[in-house]
Amino acid sequence: MDIERGILFVLSGPSGVGKGTVCKALRAQKLDIQYSVSATTRTPRAGEVHGVDYFFKTKEEFQHMIENNELLEWAEYVGNFYGTPIEYVNQTLDEGRDVILEIEVQGALQVRKTFPEGVFIFLTPPSLEELRSRIVGRGTETEDLINNRMTVAREEIEMMQHYDYSVVNDEISSACSRIQSIITSEHCKVDRVTNRYKKLLGDE
Amino acid sequence: MDIERGILFVLSGPSGVGKGTVCKALRAQKLDIQYSVSATTRTPRAGEVHGVDYFFKTKEEFQHMIENNELLEWAEYVGNFYGTPIEYVNQTLDEGRDVILEIEVQGALQVRKTFPEGVFIFLTPPSLEELRSRIVGRGTETEDLINNRMTVAREEIEMMQHYDYSVVNDEISSACSRIQSIITSEHCKVDRVTNRYKKLLGDE
Repeated sequence: MDIERGILFVLSGPSGVGKGTVCKALRAQKLDIQYSVSATTRTPRAGEVHGVDYFFKTKEEFQHMIENNELLEWAEYVGNFYGTPIEYVNQTLDEGRDVILEIEVQGALQVRKTFPEGVFIFLTPPSLEELRSRIVGRGTETEDLINNRMTVAREEIEMMQHYDYSVVNDEISSACSRIQSIITSEHCKVDRVTNRYKKLLGDE
Repeated sequence: MDIERGILFVLSGPSGVGKGTVCKALRAQKLDIQYSVSATTRTPRAGEVHGVDYFFKTKEEFQHMIENNELLEWAEYVGNFYGTPIEYVNQTLDEGRDVILEIEVQGALQVRKTFPEGVFIFLTPPSLEELRSRIVGRGTETEDLINNRMTVAREEIEMMQHYDYSVVNDEISSACSRIQSIITSEHCKVDRVTNRYKKLLGDE
């Protein structure tokens, strides 16, 4: 068996940036990539399938997963637990398929620690780009408004620095195509390619 | 003026891999990217235009450029000198445009030293990919032939390790599209993006 291991791509960004929408648009393009399935303790809604939409767990099972380090990240949200099972991600990567994980910033920072070999993509609000042109431009905004925006921008840039890539979500199709370019180019990185060849040639 | 500096992409690879063909195909796609113009001491051929095909120089002028470190790399080839003027590359990057430099491996290794912030792409012969599947496959080749190929492959992988990306030239259109993905994704790298924002917000 000589399967090249897949890559874990973590897609994140400030709330409201449109992570879900971009992820849905990527899914619609039927790329050869697997979307991570989360574990949760909340009750399944009508039509939700175990192993497809979520892995549905009891609180005891979830607690057990936390204690055994079986989650890449987890969080509690209005009384329910949500998390990313390591096993599902590792199995998919071992099959040679890439995985995309769409997740909040706090969760992404946890994954950065538990799975540093992942590729971290920060979806940037177009407002940050707009801010840029505003400041550079004529300045028709009040000083207070600009200062507020600059504070928010600084916080977003602070978050961004923990990531590998920053993709502006100006238009969904452009954002998707940039993400696809990142996926392609990550597979061309020399470190990944030479490791594969070296293993093949028996040098490692 | 708030222009984001362009990126220098160095396209190289073993001789015979098809660098020129891939570069010509990229040019035909009219990307927003500038192709580096070399300096040479050889006589212009019919139709060649100074500043477009080459910067034509006397041997004295070329020698002067070498002594003043005005070349990213240079080499002598059948009695004539060829080199890449730093000034042209820097000017184009300062205008916010990317530059592609298509060059032999030895020249690329010189550029890696003189211009480490460049992005280095190694064009990989499909034979290396083929070799991989041959070794993995049934093995209808003689052992000598496989050993010879493995020696060549080791040399090519040795070269490849000095680069950032490895792109297999299996089909010209696929190779071009991978290179375009690399160009796009390099512009999304967080380090490039945050430096730009920080400068803007006055944090640097």
